[in-house]
Amino acid sequence: MGDEISLDEAKKKAARTAVDEWVKEDTKIVGIGSGSTVVYAVQRIAERVWKDGELTDLICVPSSYQAQHLILDYNLNLGSVDRNPIIDVAIDGADEVDSNMVLIKGGGGCLLQEKVVAACSKKFIVVADYTKKSLHLGEQWCRGVPIEVAPMAQVPIKLQIEAMFGGEVVLRMAKVKAGPIITDNGNFLLDWKFVGKREYNWDEVNRTITMIPGVLETGLFVDMAHKCYFGMADGSVKAQSK
Amino acid sequence: MGDEISLDEAKKKAARTAVDEWVKEDTKIVGIGSGSTVVYAVQRIAERVWKDGELTDLICVPSSYQAQHLILDYNLNLGSVDRNPIIDVAIDGADEVDSNMVLIKGGGGCLLQEKVVAACSKKFIVVADYTKKSLHLGEQWCRGVPIEVAPMAQVPIKLQIEAMFGGEVVLRMAKVKAGPIITDNGNFLLDWKFVGKREYNWDEVNRTITMIPGVLETGLFVDMAHKCYFGMADGSVKAQSK
Repeated sequence: MGDEISLDEAKKKAARTAVDEWVKEDTKIVGIGSGSTVVYAVQRIAERVWKDGELTDLICVPSSYQAQHLILDYNLNLGSVDRNPIIDVAIDGADEVDSNMVLIKGGGGCLLQEKVVAACSKKFIVVADYTKKSLHLGEQWCRGVPIEVAPMAQVPIKLQIEAMFGGEVVLRMAKVKAGPIITDNGNFLLDWKFVGKREYNWDEVNRTITMIPGVLETGLFVDMAHKCYFGMADGSVKAQSK
Repeated sequence: MGDEISLDEAKKKAARTAVDEWVKEDTKIVGIGSGSTVVYAVQRIAERVWKDGELTDLICVPSSYQAQHLILDYNLNLGSVDRNPIIDVAIDGADEVDSNMVLIKGGGGCLLQEKVVAACSKKFIVVADYTKKSLHLGEQWCRGVPIEVAPMAQVPIKLQIEAMFGGEVVLRMAKVKAGPIITDNGNFLLDWKFVGKREYNWDEVNRTITMIPGVLETGLFVDMAHKCYFGMADGSVKAQSK
């Protein structure tokens, strides 16, 4: 129980630090990622809007239904990539971050829209607790690389990835509906549990997997993050840049 | 009117020739593409099943709702990529074929599933009439390269493609519903009207566009077609291989 609180506190510190360093009075449009750490970022934005009277014209662009509901719950200005295709800064979580700032994202299943929002953002800022920080991907995160796929193509994609890269590809099953998870975009998610202790060129792996017909997006974010903030166990916040 | 009949006859000849050359007694699984020429291919398969008593165990894997309905209408054995991820031969149409056998597909909007089925097939055979045969893409086909995208990402994708490659990207609008076309997979279609009379490296263009976040699949089929059959104006069938 102590651990959980400490993780939550770590997330909160990272999120608040990132918001205060990157969301300024001249920031017009901010991208809102998904996941448990992002909740604290939105809370901090809302605090500055509703308590401090700052950032009143700030537009928030969501990367998922979760983000959209957060923005609406805190009564912030809701934007969209349609209307706001150029975003000043996006703040998002990650499931794991390696020493080159390659990210695994999509544990929460929102990787496709998150990658779209990240790609629209001049600066993409990652917030996480210390359990997401690794030297090599797979050290901390054991659920593999999420891959969003067209439902009809799940079997050949599984076969191709396993043949090319080894490991095991599993269809992510839902917990409170029968059958597989359906993403916010109406698709399936595969989780590729890759073989650890191997040197991967993640840029190449990402390109190869994305080019498989029926693959819509991978949870590998390569060369996208500008800066990562980790809430550490000792209460400090550690920043990582390239 | 004479032209139209002749085009239909040309499609029919190409489709029948391809079926008879590639679908043999030992063919177990055939991929069924989409479009007007494929109708004749399915008719020819059905003729051999129901008139000649051949191919009775042949399984047909559809690449669209249109293909699925054709298979059911002709009472053929319906398969799926889920159950039949390794396909002996797929027969499909194309909107344009250049001298390197790069294809533009997706005029009918089924490019994503068509590419999945093509990638699952040991041999991918294209059937078309002579108006689809070009030296360079864009000579005959003026509707551009279809690109299936996540609906929320249409605007940034349009902006990125226009900035990178020029030309114009337009959202394909429906004719018998309000607003844009929705694909069989629930997505939008952009048509990239590229600038003609330019040398494109289509493999590179295809990879670059596919890697844009939110792009699900392009209608560029590079290094996929094994053989193309064109029904010619003079009633002959011309084959093209690499």
